[in-house]
Amino acid sequence: MDSYLPKNAYIGQTVAIIGGGVIGASWAALFLVNGLKVIISDPDPDIAAKAGATIDAALPSLAALGYATNAENHSLSFEKDNGLAVATADFVQECAPERIEFKQALWQAIEAAAPDTALFLSSSSSIPASVQATKMADPGRLVIGHPFNPPHLMPLVEVVPSPLTSEAVTARARAFYQDLGKVALVLRKEISGFVANRLQAAIFQESVYLVAQGVVTLDELDDVVTNSLGIRWATSGPFLSFHLGGGPGGLSHFIDHLGPPLEQSWATLGKAAFDAPTKALLAQQVASSYGAQAFSALSETRDAKEIAVINGLGSVAQQG
Amino acid sequence: MDSYLPKNAYIGQTVAIIGGGVIGASWAALFLVNGLKVIISDPDPDIAAKAGATIDAALPSLAALGYATNAENHSLSFEKDNGLAVATADFVQECAPERIEFKQALWQAIEAAAPDTALFLSSSSSIPASVQATKMADPGRLVIGHPFNPPHLMPLVEVVPSPLTSEAVTARARAFYQDLGKVALVLRKEISGFVANRLQAAIFQESVYLVAQGVVTLDELDDVVTNSLGIRWATSGPFLSFHLGGGPGGLSHFIDHLGPPLEQSWATLGKAAFDAPTKALLAQQVASSYGAQAFSALSETRDAKEIAVINGLGSVAQQG
Repeated sequence: MDSYLPKNAYIGQTVAIIGGGVIGASWAALFLVNGLKVIISDPDPDIAAKAGATIDAALPSLAALGYATNAENHSLSFEKDNGLAVATADFVQECAPERIEFKQALWQAIEAAAPDTALFLSSSSSIPASVQATKMADPGRLVIGHPFNPPHLMPLVEVVPSPLTSEAVTARARAFYQDLGKVALVLRKEISGFVANRLQAAIFQESVYLVAQGVVTLDELDDVVTNSLGIRWATSGPFLSFHLGGGPGGLSHFIDHLGPPLEQSWATLGKAAFDAPTKALLAQQVASSYGAQAFSALSETRDAKEIAVINGLGSVAQQG
Repeated sequence: MDSYLPKNAYIGQTVAIIGGGVIGASWAALFLVNGLKVIISDPDPDIAAKAGATIDAALPSLAALGYATNAENHSLSFEKDNGLAVATADFVQECAPERIEFKQALWQAIEAAAPDTALFLSSSSSIPASVQATKMADPGRLVIGHPFNPPHLMPLVEVVPSPLTSEAVTARARAFYQDLGKVALVLRKEISGFVANRLQAAIFQESVYLVAQGVVTLDELDDVVTNSLGIRWATSGPFLSFHLGGGPGGLSHFIDHLGPPLEQSWATLGKAAFDAPTKALLAQQVASSYGAQAFSALSETRDAKEIAVINGLGSVAQQG
């Protein structure tokens, strides 16, 4: 995470985005400020207005992260027909609905219509490339490029090849995202949920359990996280944190001493379910904790804070 | 987390710290810059040098967070005898070894020697107040004040009363930590591990599982977290994040649509154990990822980043 200044490595190249919803439009903003020509393919008759609003809202954040957001040079167009949209594409970033058969047919059609040199990237958070690619003539062309929401702001992109994905495709995907200013991480194995969302699921189950048990309310749990674990994990991941927690003896010392109680604590972690009483409790608490604030105001504050964290960490990294 | 400027509400009052290890000495630094007289009780003959070094190392961080660290005014002394150490204390912050019988006998002795008005606070991360207080004449006097490491830097203090703790003691503990610049959160029920460490345990089990499965190496997992979830959770906790993830429909909309796949993902989360192969794998990976960097350098970078995050978030909060 050294710098977010774009390398402009792809000026004038074309990316087709399949699906112009919140994720697709956020990708579009990132691609545009990196000088790519963007073609959004979406069946919504209002897509130009909707995606345009998301892009306009993203540009100040991108500027705050150090991108040159010269909107007058942006090349953005819309093309309902998927085949026409990808016909001149150097890159295809798919952001279509998370339905298996839909994506399988989509990639079959894209492969038939796109140039042989186009790179095929799926934003899917849940359907691995091996499952999406079953109707492709060459399943080796497809790789997951899963962003962390919002894609224009969050550094991480999980690049997840299937066992059939060619190494060249994986390497090209990683380089593409890195050149756009992202931290692209290639997973070594396909696994459902990939890494970030599995970790998020683990903490969320315990969060729901603790609220359902009445240990804390949901806003109190949020305050615990933002004032402790979040700060820690923004700066050091779980392993480095415990490596340092072990003192000069490091992670091995930590595990020798605190491994047994940690294993015991794993046995006490809770199970949660979104049953009717839990949903009612969460709905009541979220209304009383956050209901008075508008969605847009909460979102803007979150984005401003995320930018402050990213830029703050970047300034330390540059000093170090 | 509005401001870290100390209120100097306790200038000239006395806090006895029982146990001057890393946690106790970090507390000492926080108390000293808030104008409290600090007495550290520890059997280690080298405690003055060791605790002094930890305090000296903590002062620049406290200065960076906005505290006035006028070291020439600090009142720090050492007293091996627990009874003498607490005899004039307004506050007792216990940081002794995490052994049940040891703490039970300790509180019995402290209660007999301390003024009737002294507030009894335990830093324990794992032994609830109800278990520690069994030999006290008045178990209602004891409450957990569990910091997140390092205490002088991390905002959170979990205040955990036992069912017997008096409401006045709990309220006084919360006010004490808040006046020192901390975010003090009172748990509504005793539970093993309290909140932050249970959440940390949940994410760490899945982290160890993913590394053991070969999906990522441990430094890759750390990179995933610091470039996505950490940034998110430093700014918004798990519930607010998903409340915003649900769009204008909020958390209820999110759960209606993504609750079922989340429940399915909970069923796929891994189990981990610190068996010999896992420990060997982690030791090998931590050596290759972080072994080349000195503990002190890694710690300093982490502290600098944590301060940047805390101050960055503080600046947004003040604008908002």
